[in-house]
Amino acid sequence: MTDETPDIEAVNVAEGFDSFDETWSPRLAAELNGQELKFAKLEDEFVWHHHDDADELFFVVDGELRIELRDRDDVHLDAGEFVVVPRGVEHRPVALPTADVLLFEPAETRNTGNVESERTADVERL
Amino acid sequence: MTDETPDIEAVNVAEGFDSFDETWSPRLAAELNGQELKFAKLEDEFVWHHHDDADELFFVVDGELRIELRDRDDVHLDAGEFVVVPRGVEHRPVALPTADVLLFEPAETRNTGNVESERTADVERL
Repeated sequence: MTDETPDIEAVNVAEGFDSFDETWSPRLAAELNGQELKFAKLEDEFVWHHHDDADELFFVVDGELRIELRDRDDVHLDAGEFVVVPRGVEHRPVALPTADVLLFEPAETRNTGNVESERTADVERL
Repeated sequence: MTDETPDIEAVNVAEGFDSFDETWSPRLAAELNGQELKFAKLEDEFVWHHHDDADELFFVVDGELRIELRDRDDVHLDAGEFVVVPRGVEHRPVALPTADVLLFEPAETRNTGNVESERTADVERL
């Protein structure tokens, strides 16, 4: 092994979530193919928003999450369940009351989508 | 709700893996942003290969997986751990002896990458 071939490291999801406390402040866990995998701790309700150019995957690792959708039935997610919210679909995540969630979406996707809010947060590296 | 706004459905990961038995034959679980999330049941060793244009995420849901890398240290993954194998890196997954794995990679990524083998498999919809 040389400096030019650094090790490829596994990421332990539980340790990732244990490494920070802040809610609604996603941490970057991995980058691939122009997409980002983020760890997010959710608590209570978020803001209504949509993403014009991004489908968004929510994978609940711990806790319980309801994703409210403006124009159709809500989606309920327990731990071990995921959903894809297609681009353009207005949605509001509501943690019941908390949820550890893996997000998968294109790089540069803003957490509050089309909305600028006090909840708008830059992504920090894990 | 109208026919034009179909429900958005949650996917239960455990149920997904319970729904098929075939090893080394990934099932398509979700599509987003030109990427695909697949369920794969792995057993024993796969073939050495690489993907010229695809970074590949392996997330172990159950079991144990070693990803051997030709030019650097192996990566060992227990349940709840993931790794990204960057494009171009030759690798060989080896389940110990079985692993249920979520794969995340661009649509049209062939499971055996640059190699045509008896293990080359089309992706079926879950």
